[in-house]
Amino acid sequence: MLVDELDTPQLVLDLDALRENLVRYQRYFDEQGIKLRPHIKTHKTLAVAAMQMDCGAVGLTCQKVGEAEVMLAGGLDVDMLISYNIIGDSKLDRLVALARQTRITVTADSTYVLQGYSAAAAVNDVILGVLIEIDCGNQRTGVTSVEEAVELGKLAHTLPGLELRGIMGFPTPPSVGPFLHEVVEAYAQAGLPCPVVSGGSTKSALEAHEIPELTEYRIGEYAVGGAGHLAAGRHTLEQCALRVIATVVSHPTQDRVILDSGSKTLSASTMETERGVSMGYVVEYPDAHIFACSEEHAHVDVSRCARKPEIGERVQVLPVHPCPCVNLHDEMVAVRDGQVVGFWPVHARGKIR
Amino acid sequence: MLVDELDTPQLVLDLDALRENLVRYQRYFDEQGIKLRPHIKTHKTLAVAAMQMDCGAVGLTCQKVGEAEVMLAGGLDVDMLISYNIIGDSKLDRLVALARQTRITVTADSTYVLQGYSAAAAVNDVILGVLIEIDCGNQRTGVTSVEEAVELGKLAHTLPGLELRGIMGFPTPPSVGPFLHEVVEAYAQAGLPCPVVSGGSTKSALEAHEIPELTEYRIGEYAVGGAGHLAAGRHTLEQCALRVIATVVSHPTQDRVILDSGSKTLSASTMETERGVSMGYVVEYPDAHIFACSEEHAHVDVSRCARKPEIGERVQVLPVHPCPCVNLHDEMVAVRDGQVVGFWPVHARGKIR
Repeated sequence: MLVDELDTPQLVLDLDALRENLVRYQRYFDEQGIKLRPHIKTHKTLAVAAMQMDCGAVGLTCQKVGEAEVMLAGGLDVDMLISYNIIGDSKLDRLVALARQTRITVTADSTYVLQGYSAAAAVNDVILGVLIEIDCGNQRTGVTSVEEAVELGKLAHTLPGLELRGIMGFPTPPSVGPFLHEVVEAYAQAGLPCPVVSGGSTKSALEAHEIPELTEYRIGEYAVGGAGHLAAGRHTLEQCALRVIATVVSHPTQDRVILDSGSKTLSASTMETERGVSMGYVVEYPDAHIFACSEEHAHVDVSRCARKPEIGERVQVLPVHPCPCVNLHDEMVAVRDGQVVGFWPVHARGKIR
Repeated sequence: MLVDELDTPQLVLDLDALRENLVRYQRYFDEQGIKLRPHIKTHKTLAVAAMQMDCGAVGLTCQKVGEAEVMLAGGLDVDMLISYNIIGDSKLDRLVALARQTRITVTADSTYVLQGYSAAAAVNDVILGVLIEIDCGNQRTGVTSVEEAVELGKLAHTLPGLELRGIMGFPTPPSVGPFLHEVVEAYAQAGLPCPVVSGGSTKSALEAHEIPELTEYRIGEYAVGGAGHLAAGRHTLEQCALRVIATVVSHPTQDRVILDSGSKTLSASTMETERGVSMGYVVEYPDAHIFACSEEHAHVDVSRCARKPEIGERVQVLPVHPCPCVNLHDEMVAVRDGQVVGFWPVHARGKIR
């Protein structure tokens, strides 16, 4: 079956581009002596996770317990980091079950979370590895001072059932190097183990060597690229492996066409461009501008296109943010050289718990 | 089972609030003599669609063929409008199959789309009803002039297999009344049938009577409300039936807490507020401000909250836009008086084709 025979809108994954990205980033991290632990949140798909392990990854990163369950149930009983504060009896029970099957590391940024881990691990006689999360300016989770990082490290080091394995941050551009360095120094002075210093984000991945403390790196989008990575020059068009095939369903004015791929296909993620907000990049019409999405329509300004797309014509769209885009789809169509290789279930789609 | 016993994040639907919304809007449209044709894109769930029919709806609206297939397969073989330009052999074959089971109306804004409908209908000996779509300023689909509307109406009226049933627009606030009036007049002068003039959008639903031409109305969000409708005064807090139950997983600074409901739970939809972009409304903390979402985290500014939420505490979040939020979930938990009534599959989730 040809890609051109697929009905639209449809999410497709180019396997050659995917492979090239996996190999390229793995080579960089190998050269730098940093362990690569890909984040499965981007693709949520067993085959891609297995390819990442085959390329030399040290293990996988998941964001939710449910994602890790899917990976293990799919045979990927690898070293697993769940980079999340896991709270509540239901999830802690499931976490213990995972820890009985494979080596599990979780993260924490509070006493509350650490005590929950310890109680669950000690009662059930399993070991949970712990990384203390450091806020790297993302205004999300993570302690904001060296003192808190040390305090929580000490607690994790002493609570039963836990094994302090180090620290993690997100994102980790070179500018956060000094803060990570301070924490690592403070851990050494406090006699706390810190074998893992885990960084993350595709945006700064290839600058990881500028922070010598980093021992591990978590990235997801590197595997597939996207409109943002293309604009920033991190991925070439050929390296953007994940695309939505769409059809022009309307051409109501000279300067506007409408695609059948809306925010329920591409996601509602936006990026700023010199032409204002963009919700995707049209491969065949680089001068087109997706200026809005309804749920099932992409609204495209084609005023700058010398040739205008016609109704019924098919185009490829790079999503702005691949992770939420993939999470909308039950399957990705794996393709190579314009041929359909397979219909791959997005196994961990919707696993929010 | 109590709602408080559900693990988080979880989408819940309050059945009493839902029922009240359905009855209230149905009563308004009954009083105005306008037929209500609810849009199932918001809830994508058979039980809710059935309740809408029970309340007096004239039929259902779907946006994609796949949504209509789900409704029919679930026993709702009702009068169905698919308010979309349907293109390509695969979808037209499926459309014909639907037209063999129930009364189907589709929309068109081009000769291309009309010719596709006609070819499929005539060859297969079915009738497809057609509404010509009028652009109401949404910069999406729809013809932009009275002349085009008449031209397409004439074509639909003469092509084999088609039955011209009128016009439709979205959205239809009172300000578009004059344009709709012009089109209706022009259809009358051209001897074209126009039994249906279909308007839509919850935002202007209760002003529908200000456009006397309207015979039908399509609305989805009216059933459940949301943060935008609350802010605009269209739904009271009690009338906001759809909520995400979330847990505080981090409290890294005095003024910031993090919930376990990110953009993969709430959707990446945003709304403007006096405090900047918002991605949801926290019911228990009206002074909290969800200023960003990562995929699995909501970032909340609690600086204006007299009492701060604590780690492990559960809250309810109203999504900004219920439609893409529901589309992320495999199920909604139906609740009443704090009790779980059932786990309802979101049957048409992900039906983008």
